Amino acid sequence: MKHISSRDNPAVKALAKLACTAGKRGAPVLLDGVHLCQAWLQHYGAPDQAIFDVERLSQPDIAALAAAVPEASSLALDARLMQSLASVESGQGVAFLVTPQVLPVPPVVDENCVLFDRIQDPGNVGTLLRTCAAAGIKRVFLATGTAAAWSPKVLRSGQGAHFALAIHEHADLTALLPRLQVPLVATSLDGARDLYEGRLPERCAWVFGHEGQGVAAELLAAAKLKVLIPHDAVAVESLNVGAAAAICLFEQRRQALHGSRR
Amino acid sequence: MKHISSRDNPAVKALAKLACTAGKRGAPVLLDGVHLCQAWLQHYGAPDQAIFDVERLSQPDIAALAAAVPEASSLALDARLMQSLASVESGQGVAFLVTPQVLPVPPVVDENCVLFDRIQDPGNVGTLLRTCAAAGIKRVFLATGTAAAWSPKVLRSGQGAHFALAIHEHADLTALLPRLQVPLVATSLDGARDLYEGRLPERCAWVFGHEGQGVAAELLAAAKLKVLIPHDAVAVESLNVGAAAAICLFEQRRQALHGSRR
Repeated sequence: MKHISSRDNPAVKALAKLACTAGKRGAPVLLDGVHLCQAWLQHYGAPDQAIFDVERLSQPDIAALAAAVPEASSLALDARLMQSLASVESGQGVAFLVTPQVLPVPPVVDENCVLFDRIQDPGNVGTLLRTCAAAGIKRVFLATGTAAAWSPKVLRSGQGAHFALAIHEHADLTALLPRLQVPLVATSLDGARDLYEGRLPERCAWVFGHEGQGVAAELLAAAKLKVLIPHDAVAVESLNVGAAAAICLFEQRRQALHGSRR
Repeated sequence: MKHISSRDNPAVKALAKLACTAGKRGAPVLLDGVHLCQAWLQHYGAPDQAIFDVERLSQPDIAALAAAVPEASSLALDARLMQSLASVESGQGVAFLVTPQVLPVPPVVDENCVLFDRIQDPGNVGTLLRTCAAAGIKRVFLATGTAAAWSPKVLRSGQGAHFALAIHEHADLTALLPRLQVPLVATSLDGARDLYEGRLPERCAWVFGHEGQGVAAELLAAAKLKVLIPHDAVAVESLNVGAAAAICLFEQRRQALHGSRR
């Protein structure tokens, strides 16, 4: 395995730059830490490049990763160089450079899915991906203006959800509408039905919106069903988007799992 | 109103230091922005000190705040000094220095309430406070080791929840147990009942735990009821603590609001 100890090495410089920029469309991204790298290997095979802390190559979990990656695409870096790539204070001594596949938008969407309408905060996007995966959702569409799914912060709060989901980034949600063969369901503070009144569709396209502005008017108008979470509106104006999504997706899951006894 | 234009003014230096440190027990904290200051005025009256951007004193919402605060405790700062205090990139031109009251722990707790067991992330703590308020909870206990409730990040993600809740910080949760006259309920991945099987107590003390470690063993052992959110465990190991709490608190709320039709 090639060993690099100079900060001026072009490969190291390029990696350091990548480590602090969010992934542009189709561009490579840096997965940081043992779990993310293991998950990538398991789901997609070898990375474009694997980068190891030379001092930690003998650690069992790191050694297993090194053994699983072709040597030609592996680099061993001095500890201080490796640390400069880590997205958290104490890096785990391994990172993969990978290119997430850009998935084609299916011509017809007839499964339970979630649309992210310009959700800005990376922590919210990561938590939402994690909640979607936990609720059994398999496909999500992230509108342009949503935090980049494969950025370090979103990856960290996603806790592996990225590998359980088909993630369509830079999605044009308006263009998606004619392809939906499931009803569009939005949360809304007015003109909406109580979430707990009556049944939710077994399969639908949920749309959750921008932290300040909510779901775009155009999408709201296209929603077949608008639901209101009956919260204490005297206490707070609204719920955090991640909390609202968790409540909606798990109410749907509750009805699916325990439906006959509603 | 006293007008300050020097960065070296001792009052400005002290405020700048406060603006970036999380609130220690009983210490003053800085509330940043129109909404938080309005909410403080409405709930607790005049602040220890009110600080205004001298260039924005004629803005109606800022002027209204200035009129409501005794002049002796008001300061007008040059815009650049004011900006150095703001916790977000574009400050709103007003901040209050306040001392949140340290509430005595009630001898008996017989209401629906939430215990935060060392939740580290300020965004999670703020979201959780907001979710608690939205679910109609009135009292929360934050164990030592939980992010400081009145720190800028927690205030920001709380979105006003601080003013709808009695917040007990630095709580000793173990010492609280004998005072609970409602059952302690914890989420747990094993030995737990499905959240959606059977009814939840109308009033209980929910405990939500540390992002990595979950609820402390001692508290888990004291729980009268352990519930499991039936998530897709193949997809992700667990839910974010804020999402889990939203699901639990709103399932309880659903049962309370729509109980007869379960």
